Amino acid sequence: METNLANQFLAKRTNGIRSSVIREILKITVQDSEFLSFAGGLPNPNLLDQNLLLTATEETIRNYSRVALQYGDSTGYESLRKRIQSDFVDVPVQTNRIFITHGSQQGLDLLGKLFLDVNTNLLLEDPVYLGALQAFSPYRPNMIPLSMEFDGPNLVELEKILSMQKIHCFYTNPSYQNPSTVTWSLEKRKVVASLLDQYGVILFEDEAYKYLDFKGLVFPSISSFRERLDLTFVLGSFSKIISPGFRLGWVVVPELYQKIFTNAKQGNDLNTNQFSQVVMDILLSHLDWKEHLSKIQSYYMKQKEHLVELLKFHLPEVRFEEPKGGMFLWTEYPNVTEGDMMKGIMEKKVVMVPGNEFRLVSTESAFFRMNYSFLPNQEMEEGVKRIVSVYRDIIT
Amino acid sequence: METNLANQFLAKRTNGIRSSVIREILKITVQDSEFLSFAGGLPNPNLLDQNLLLTATEETIRNYSRVALQYGDSTGYESLRKRIQSDFVDVPVQTNRIFITHGSQQGLDLLGKLFLDVNTNLLLEDPVYLGALQAFSPYRPNMIPLSMEFDGPNLVELEKILSMQKIHCFYTNPSYQNPSTVTWSLEKRKVVASLLDQYGVILFEDEAYKYLDFKGLVFPSISSFRERLDLTFVLGSFSKIISPGFRLGWVVVPELYQKIFTNAKQGNDLNTNQFSQVVMDILLSHLDWKEHLSKIQSYYMKQKEHLVELLKFHLPEVRFEEPKGGMFLWTEYPNVTEGDMMKGIMEKKVVMVPGNEFRLVSTESAFFRMNYSFLPNQEMEEGVKRIVSVYRDIIT
Repeated sequence: METNLANQFLAKRTNGIRSSVIREILKITVQDSEFLSFAGGLPNPNLLDQNLLLTATEETIRNYSRVALQYGDSTGYESLRKRIQSDFVDVPVQTNRIFITHGSQQGLDLLGKLFLDVNTNLLLEDPVYLGALQAFSPYRPNMIPLSMEFDGPNLVELEKILSMQKIHCFYTNPSYQNPSTVTWSLEKRKVVASLLDQYGVILFEDEAYKYLDFKGLVFPSISSFRERLDLTFVLGSFSKIISPGFRLGWVVVPELYQKIFTNAKQGNDLNTNQFSQVVMDILLSHLDWKEHLSKIQSYYMKQKEHLVELLKFHLPEVRFEEPKGGMFLWTEYPNVTEGDMMKGIMEKKVVMVPGNEFRLVSTESAFFRMNYSFLPNQEMEEGVKRIVSVYRDIIT
Repeated sequence: METNLANQFLAKRTNGIRSSVIREILKITVQDSEFLSFAGGLPNPNLLDQNLLLTATEETIRNYSRVALQYGDSTGYESLRKRIQSDFVDVPVQTNRIFITHGSQQGLDLLGKLFLDVNTNLLLEDPVYLGALQAFSPYRPNMIPLSMEFDGPNLVELEKILSMQKIHCFYTNPSYQNPSTVTWSLEKRKVVASLLDQYGVILFEDEAYKYLDFKGLVFPSISSFRERLDLTFVLGSFSKIISPGFRLGWVVVPELYQKIFTNAKQGNDLNTNQFSQVVMDILLSHLDWKEHLSKIQSYYMKQKEHLVELLKFHLPEVRFEEPKGGMFLWTEYPNVTEGDMMKGIMEKKVVMVPGNEFRLVSTESAFFRMNYSFLPNQEMEEGVKRIVSVYRDIIT
């Protein structure tokens, strides 16, 4: 009834708007502190040096208030754009091709707005990052899933899809993917770059987790192997390497689309938060980047090892590939359904994200995305124990 | 050629995307410091107490980093939402109906996304806030202009429009409007509220300038007089009363649309910058609000008086109504065209925004929006003198 009333007035595209179970879970776990959450993708705020941040904000207010407290360029704060270009981008571009967005999520929304008509063929990884589904689905493209292997897409399937229909855009998250932790091999990056060139496909390459390799490896982007640089957009983010609190991401935009991207960005929000951009720029200028990254990487690795040990010890039936970086385990629980597991663990006040949330077509198998970056060791153990008891109850 | 190449790949809605002359001008004036600009709508950053801001950021980092440096609720930081509800909203609502957005501009984009289909009838003031055109136009509604008088809309015309066709939404900026400075009388607010109820029209009420009355008056919102509270959205902003650097605005959303608004917000950018939300909340808790507002109001009034005196003295032909608040004069230059004036003043390195930028249908008359909040007195005088010389050259 209420829905019908609302529907009278809503635009058609709202049929495509998806909710996020993760965000609903996040809300529950914030309201009830007894909940142990493997659900969020929350970085640990303690990994950022507080004194450095204090210095950066003070410098911003004392020396840059004319810029930081004002409207700004819709493309972003130039000094920060330059820094991103020189330190975080591996495709050959000018500074004016870097756009700063309100998190890389905004980059996804803008790309959807610019490139997706109703029924436009959009290729997505299966499973796929849920935020991308939320960003793209209101534009109601025809979303096509692509099977993934542990080193990247199934190439036979990819080539079949590309040859059978006109694929307009391909969205991928090729390093330590959320949720599957799949990381494309160098080889597959090159092959796919060449296939996308051949078929004239636009690539949205989301590199949010690029720097989270446990051993400090940094894979070159798929885009860096493309010849059609006019058909490739690379998205990056400070959320996982500095903090999500500043909502700062970027998009590398081909020259051809700079003007329309600027105008779309203006329509969305005029410009990205200037205060945060200046703070970030100053923070980065003071930061010992290598040391900071290695602190993050080794913290995440330890957390991962702890969760892996707990699962191997308490629940050896659970299957997963050990990730090489990132913040998740992508686990399969045999002989149960996602629904039964979810019901059980919510009662025991522990949460993970059910795998079908990340799929266009549901599977029978029970997958769960488990985050290990947030819970301290003891709570992680307690959480695993609760999950074990639920699992044992169901299968016996 | 380049455009055609880009068009091959772009979504149809990009035909609707508009550029902003203001933002292009802003870019020029930033690059060339000899330019004197009456173009932007830039608040003066010196009106915010630096020490207070330092205190707020320090408190945020020391005591709230767990919240401020993390992802957050898509609806906004609760403490700030409560403050907005109690201090800035005059329609009877619960906290959970206040959504915090990345500037009120993002609120406009979200409302467009939720309510505007291709050819949906959208009623707009003539002239209209340019940012609203940029936010709404990608959704390609049928935009209908409504003639404005100095105390609000022409009611005869409004009733005729409403009775002749189904108007889905009406966007208005009823206090010290950008660009015209029109401020609706109490009487017209009541009459229009009742007409919108009668015809079942959704209202997007943009109150960005609500607190900028030179004498400290605060008009009740149109929405506060509506009975159909399910059909009314009120937008507000901290940009003009604290600083645009934080990109913080809000939307009061009817209960019926809370869920879909949350999901749309998630798709757009997950959540608004948490760091800025916490800083703003703490800043407001320490701020002597009355004193702060009266400082802003009297500063803007002095600036307005200075520009009015300069124009009356140097260029008595120019026509305008004296605004009662806000940051603009809406001036008409007789016997010239906007094009000739723009060409002339750009050569003399002074800028204003041509009136037709704010119109759906161009007029022959030459209107310019002149901002007075930004230029210091001497530069304002020099700017007016340059404009005078251009005007005299053209008409003689």
